[in-house]
Amino acid sequence: MSDDSSSRIAADLRDWIAAAPPGAQLPATRALVTRYAAGPVTVQKALRILTAQGLVESRPGVGTFVRTVRAARPHDYGWQTAALGAPRNRVTLFSALRTVPNDRIALHSGYPDRELLPERLVRSAFARAARGDAAVNRPPSGGLPDLQAWFATELAAVTPAGVMPPSPSDVVIFPGSQSGLNTTFQSLVGSGRPLLVESPTYWGAILAATRAGVRVVPVPSGTDGPRPEDLARAFRQTGARAFYAQPHFTNPTGGQWNPERSAGVLEVVREHGAFLIEDDWAHDFGIDSVPIPLATRDDAGHVVYLRSLTKSVSPSVRIAAVVARGPARERILADAQAESMYVSGLLQAVALDVVTHPGWRTHLRALGRQLAGRRDLLITAVRDHIPDAHLAVVPRGGLNLWVRLPEPVDLPRLVRDCEDDGVIIAPGDEWFPAEPTGAFLRLNYSGPNPGAFPEGARLIGRALARQR
Amino acid sequence: MSDDSSSRIAADLRDWIAAAPPGAQLPATRALVTRYAAGPVTVQKALRILTAQGLVESRPGVGTFVRTVRAARPHDYGWQTAALGAPRNRVTLFSALRTVPNDRIALHSGYPDRELLPERLVRSAFARAARGDAAVNRPPSGGLPDLQAWFATELAAVTPAGVMPPSPSDVVIFPGSQSGLNTTFQSLVGSGRPLLVESPTYWGAILAATRAGVRVVPVPSGTDGPRPEDLARAFRQTGARAFYAQPHFTNPTGGQWNPERSAGVLEVVREHGAFLIEDDWAHDFGIDSVPIPLATRDDAGHVVYLRSLTKSVSPSVRIAAVVARGPARERILADAQAESMYVSGLLQAVALDVVTHPGWRTHLRALGRQLAGRRDLLITAVRDHIPDAHLAVVPRGGLNLWVRLPEPVDLPRLVRDCEDDGVIIAPGDEWFPAEPTGAFLRLNYSGPNPGAFPEGARLIGRALARQR
Repeated sequence: MSDDSSSRIAADLRDWIAAAPPGAQLPATRALVTRYAAGPVTVQKALRILTAQGLVESRPGVGTFVRTVRAARPHDYGWQTAALGAPRNRVTLFSALRTVPNDRIALHSGYPDRELLPERLVRSAFARAARGDAAVNRPPSGGLPDLQAWFATELAAVTPAGVMPPSPSDVVIFPGSQSGLNTTFQSLVGSGRPLLVESPTYWGAILAATRAGVRVVPVPSGTDGPRPEDLARAFRQTGARAFYAQPHFTNPTGGQWNPERSAGVLEVVREHGAFLIEDDWAHDFGIDSVPIPLATRDDAGHVVYLRSLTKSVSPSVRIAAVVARGPARERILADAQAESMYVSGLLQAVALDVVTHPGWRTHLRALGRQLAGRRDLLITAVRDHIPDAHLAVVPRGGLNLWVRLPEPVDLPRLVRDCEDDGVIIAPGDEWFPAEPTGAFLRLNYSGPNPGAFPEGARLIGRALARQR
Repeated sequence: MSDDSSSRIAADLRDWIAAAPPGAQLPATRALVTRYAAGPVTVQKALRILTAQGLVESRPGVGTFVRTVRAARPHDYGWQTAALGAPRNRVTLFSALRTVPNDRIALHSGYPDRELLPERLVRSAFARAARGDAAVNRPPSGGLPDLQAWFATELAAVTPAGVMPPSPSDVVIFPGSQSGLNTTFQSLVGSGRPLLVESPTYWGAILAATRAGVRVVPVPSGTDGPRPEDLARAFRQTGARAFYAQPHFTNPTGGQWNPERSAGVLEVVREHGAFLIEDDWAHDFGIDSVPIPLATRDDAGHVVYLRSLTKSVSPSVRIAAVVARGPARERILADAQAESMYVSGLLQAVALDVVTHPGWRTHLRALGRQLAGRRDLLITAVRDHIPDAHLAVVPRGGLNLWVRLPEPVDLPRLVRDCEDDGVIIAPGDEWFPAEPTGAFLRLNYSGPNPGAFPEGARLIGRALARQR
């Protein structure tokens, strides 16, 4: 009977399909069950018949649709070339963003592996938030007040007594640090004006600056920070009023500014009536050192502080904060509103839930130990298998090793050869705002399967040897 | 005993506080319970003692902190004025974004009231997503493939047979339509170049264009759309290559382009080798009419289609899609990546879950009926109490009435007077890219408590009468 019923339903639906436009969605199984007074198995069988006849196609999780049988024809979008003009951004997939199959040894990624995330905290925070008001409410443009307060308090807790800590209203919440960088560059620098950056520096910051139409001016920076006199010269020569930097666990070099350089940089910034945009991207990734932001030494509005939770909490919790004071804060808030109106209150509630949970501190301590083990394992692997590579610094935090290769080396070929052998690496060139000053690799030790680090290093060493 | 224990704990904590920096967070109650082997009530009593002594302050939902007792001193951020230069955006809180207390009659909002949201679907989708992979995974920059497919299929289902529907890869997911507008304007127009817009038009679009540095050129548009010859003249005179418009349930006028104007506009856009940026913001808010996007009539890449789910699903689900083809799509994807890297996969999974749930269609049907009742109630109230106000069109969808007031009228004073009387209204001026062509109010019928609409209209009428 079921077979007969299925055929009957299929025949009836065939008439419906003949009258429907290609791509039309069939009623849901549940609705068909009601309409034909048939069981779901019978209805599904009818749909399979229609699928086999090429009349419908089902998209898992979406529904069943009248099959689009249209003559494909080549399109000419040539007219767009004149309308669009030359592009501002490179249309590139950066190495750090690539997703690769599980069987590769992934040393390229910018995101920590799932095993390094506070997965249980995140899941229970989402479950709680699903029941709370944040699921249906709209938060203020600046952010959820309690989350603003948390970011302000985190800075206040390490601010010395002589400095006024920021207040919660100095905090603007963004849907991720990339948006924060974009808006900060646009607000504080603006199209056509110069922005000083460390070289090398985070590729995402270079990208954000390019998008904002900002002119990027590199300042050389070593693993203990830029020399204040180099920075002063760049301010003088370019008339720049802002400097973007990562004083702690710099991406890519893994360096950390020493106290003298930090103090010198702050002084130069103040002298030039300029902003230091401090990107504290690895605040939660300290290994041998707890980073104290430079923002805690300034209450005159010179340091604009960027702090993200995405990498340490979860890639699904796109939450970052920019802490700024005075007119700069007003400017950033206005631009943030123009850019994204407001940030999902539920994501903000989840972020706050995770970082105020007692388990968060426990997680961070365990994370520090895991990162230490992974870092040391990768360093040993590199030393064993790529003996003539040079590691400028053993990073005291962060997620990356910055390895200089002996030259000459054909870096694109090396990256390709390694990929053919199953190891994904990121060429250092992507972190240079101008021409690279050498052949570098950025090797990330927070990816999946650290047990494969030695094999990964061995394969890199072998690919390198082939170029000798 | 409990009293003694509390005092003892408070005394011990006092020593800790004396050594801690101002603003430092005290260990959580749970941790103190363990440390002092005391009950939570005893610990909380100890914290209350310290609070009463002015040593700590508790921030509900965040924790307890060493009180910040610092000498407040005035700050001079004057140096920032030179560093920042003149602002590009007005630092304004737009009426539609304002949150007001519950006892006001709110006719200003841009967001539907909670009772109009599919709250149960949203909560269960979040609960499901909390258990799934989306809670810890990073999606591709373009979006979750299944969600891209859903947006493409929605358009394909109403695309006539002679037109090639978009493919899933033509869809780029954004964290809300404001981000989509920003990136689209930046990608397709660019800083300093002209963008044609309807006048009046959505204030958020004017704001996004300003942020992108785009020069906004208004084209007059009535409730049945702009006249093609006006549009053609504007393209010729300005050299613009893009036109931003809302053909269905235009915000603010509530109009809907008639078929002749739609066809004429598409033809003018094609002739000028230009883009039509179609903002289908009210796709889910049809009342007497189901909007068929103009995007379904173009497969040559002229129409770039913007579709948001935030207003209809939940303000916490900041998800929108831009559908574009050819180089335009490449350009938009590259800029989206530079702007926000990727959108929370969990929010994308929740959006997909809601719109593919059988309850979504049921919800939309009920929503249409609710909006019809609310719209008619507000129209009757306006006719009864503001008899000399003019309503250009009874909107066949959307959330707003566009009411023209008899002149002369002091609009800012009217808005203030109404607010004093407990009715919040939005002055029409915010929707004009240039000088307003009359005194308008935008009255939203999707706010809380529709039962108060007659009283709201009565108070507006009374405030208006005071100006006669």
